[in-house]
Amino acid sequence: MMAPRSRLLSPALQILRRRCFSSLVSPASKAVLYDEQGAPEQVLRVAELPPANLGERDVCVRMLAAPINPSDINRIEGVYPVRPPLPRAIGGCEGVGQVHALGSAVTAKLSPGDWVIPSPATFGTWQTYIVKDENMWHKVRSDVPMEYAATVTVNPLTALRMLQDFVQLNPGDAIVQNGATSMVGQCVIQLAKVLGIHTINIIRDRTGSEEAKDKLKQLGADEVFTESQLDIRKVKSLLGALPEPALGFNCVGGNAASLLLKFLRHGGTMVTYGGMSKRPVTAPTSYFIFKDISLRGFWLQKWINAEKAEDCRKMIDYLLDLVHEGKLKYEMESIPFGEFSLGLEKALGKHGSQPKQVVRF
Amino acid sequence: MMAPRSRLLSPALQILRRRCFSSLVSPASKAVLYDEQGAPEQVLRVAELPPANLGERDVCVRMLAAPINPSDINRIEGVYPVRPPLPRAIGGCEGVGQVHALGSAVTAKLSPGDWVIPSPATFGTWQTYIVKDENMWHKVRSDVPMEYAATVTVNPLTALRMLQDFVQLNPGDAIVQNGATSMVGQCVIQLAKVLGIHTINIIRDRTGSEEAKDKLKQLGADEVFTESQLDIRKVKSLLGALPEPALGFNCVGGNAASLLLKFLRHGGTMVTYGGMSKRPVTAPTSYFIFKDISLRGFWLQKWINAEKAEDCRKMIDYLLDLVHEGKLKYEMESIPFGEFSLGLEKALGKHGSQPKQVVRF
Repeated sequence: MMAPRSRLLSPALQILRRRCFSSLVSPASKAVLYDEQGAPEQVLRVAELPPANLGERDVCVRMLAAPINPSDINRIEGVYPVRPPLPRAIGGCEGVGQVHALGSAVTAKLSPGDWVIPSPATFGTWQTYIVKDENMWHKVRSDVPMEYAATVTVNPLTALRMLQDFVQLNPGDAIVQNGATSMVGQCVIQLAKVLGIHTINIIRDRTGSEEAKDKLKQLGADEVFTESQLDIRKVKSLLGALPEPALGFNCVGGNAASLLLKFLRHGGTMVTYGGMSKRPVTAPTSYFIFKDISLRGFWLQKWINAEKAEDCRKMIDYLLDLVHEGKLKYEMESIPFGEFSLGLEKALGKHGSQPKQVVRF
Repeated sequence: MMAPRSRLLSPALQILRRRCFSSLVSPASKAVLYDEQGAPEQVLRVAELPPANLGERDVCVRMLAAPINPSDINRIEGVYPVRPPLPRAIGGCEGVGQVHALGSAVTAKLSPGDWVIPSPATFGTWQTYIVKDENMWHKVRSDVPMEYAATVTVNPLTALRMLQDFVQLNPGDAIVQNGATSMVGQCVIQLAKVLGIHTINIIRDRTGSEEAKDKLKQLGADEVFTESQLDIRKVKSLLGALPEPALGFNCVGGNAASLLLKFLRHGGTMVTYGGMSKRPVTAPTSYFIFKDISLRGFWLQKWINAEKAEDCRKMIDYLLDLVHEGKLKYEMESIPFGEFSLGLEKALGKHGSQPKQVVRF
């Protein structure tokens, strides 16, 4: 076990240090952590972390809320390419908190009580107090539901980037996506609508798919089809007056990706950002040669790593403004920290299809 | 049957016309043509075409040689997106001929005996005489074997464009391709070598694959693997000192495409230009998301249509210069026009693996 430097001091010296720099020590933190990779319900545990020293540029944040994202689960399982070092890795990658204390030389315009998010999203948001350099925190508006501030940096940002990074879209254009009920999917529909772009949406066949269609249409979806509706020869005949889409978003793979490809216009691009079916993407060679279709991929982490922190923050502000204006919403369920295990089970799909689980600390 | 205007005249008037404009009528032409789509060996027939009038800007060319390309066969079968109108469609799309006669107002620097090729490649090269506007003809050097001049505009040009259009390659870089024994494959190896670019080549397992490997290495291939050699966990361990390729060319699909993808470096691009196995391309979603792999397509016809005739001709000259310098060669078999049926059978693969069939008129 790696101990923070303060814990290497003798108890007496620790007390002395705390007295001398009393404003520079965080409260003890309660965290959800893991020492080895594996099934989250088996390897995760709640642990008390001792108070941490604040460097002069550090900000101590009392966390308010943090979601359980699929990528958090993949990191714990060890199937994600980027993972925190073990042991004592704290779960979670995004969230919102309130400034609790500031190091003596913090220059950012931050006051106790301000809402901040780690930006870029970073490891270890499933805990009650976090101490990190001021540059890691981005102040956000606090007049939106905290669940939105807690979840804005991963899924809504993915939706926004994908609409901007691959094809020049103009008002009146259309895009097509599968996995449309996912959080990214819901955001794509609404962000496209703000831009005047039509959406063609593909969802799974399941009990309640008619209700799911209605919900997506209320968010602004132009068309919503279940996969079985697309088992026809000419799916484009379903487009009606909508233009053929130049861009598609795939988070499923397998048949749902093949159906999406059928909608794309000549020269169109399909961007894969997830693989929920765990099946690969398959495309006939003629699509590449004669239809000039391109298949690409999107990974938020890579974009974030490309030193775009400032862009990232501007987009986060934009997204929270849309939330405030009522133009961006998605289903979430708040769970108290004490019921983390139940939230985890729901996030793992053990209670059927559930909204995004957001832990409130 | 659509008849050229001259054939609508009465025989007496035709004779009169020929006498008045004796230099403006082509010799009768013998052509391989078809009236309906279908299996080439069933629908193709040899027919005599009456003399054609030369307009004042027309050039009459006596064809010397023309290949039987897979895309020619696909056009006849009706499975190619661009096809000549029926009935009386003449086969073939590229070839070389000798200037036979010039219209009175031709401005191009052409003299009888010059070698010319239709550029861009166009329908109807399987005939002994062709009359077309001077702009359709590109004069080429006549000090190379005529089979090369006859075949330069489709396969070698495809290889050259694909090396230039997708990824910025620098000397020392590597590319990977499957179907490496194909004519495009052989050209890719040699053109890459001229540019100082290494090639990793994948070929089918078959009798004679060791000889095929030797032949490709003699052309300049750095590595040649049969598909079965790549049935290992870490294909990249086979790269040795070669860099991971940023670009791959796929003309097979199916397993051969999957094997190619395993070689690509992070951010790499696979370009599909053929589908010899008639199987689709399959890729795990993780390749797109975490490896940032792009799948694209190339179709020469589209590039040609993009008004790049001048670029096209410069590249044809460059390629024939390489042929003249002994830096570009590939296997071909000449067949006399009288044995067209045998050449067609070979091109259709009915006599096993055969070199490119080039008809000499």
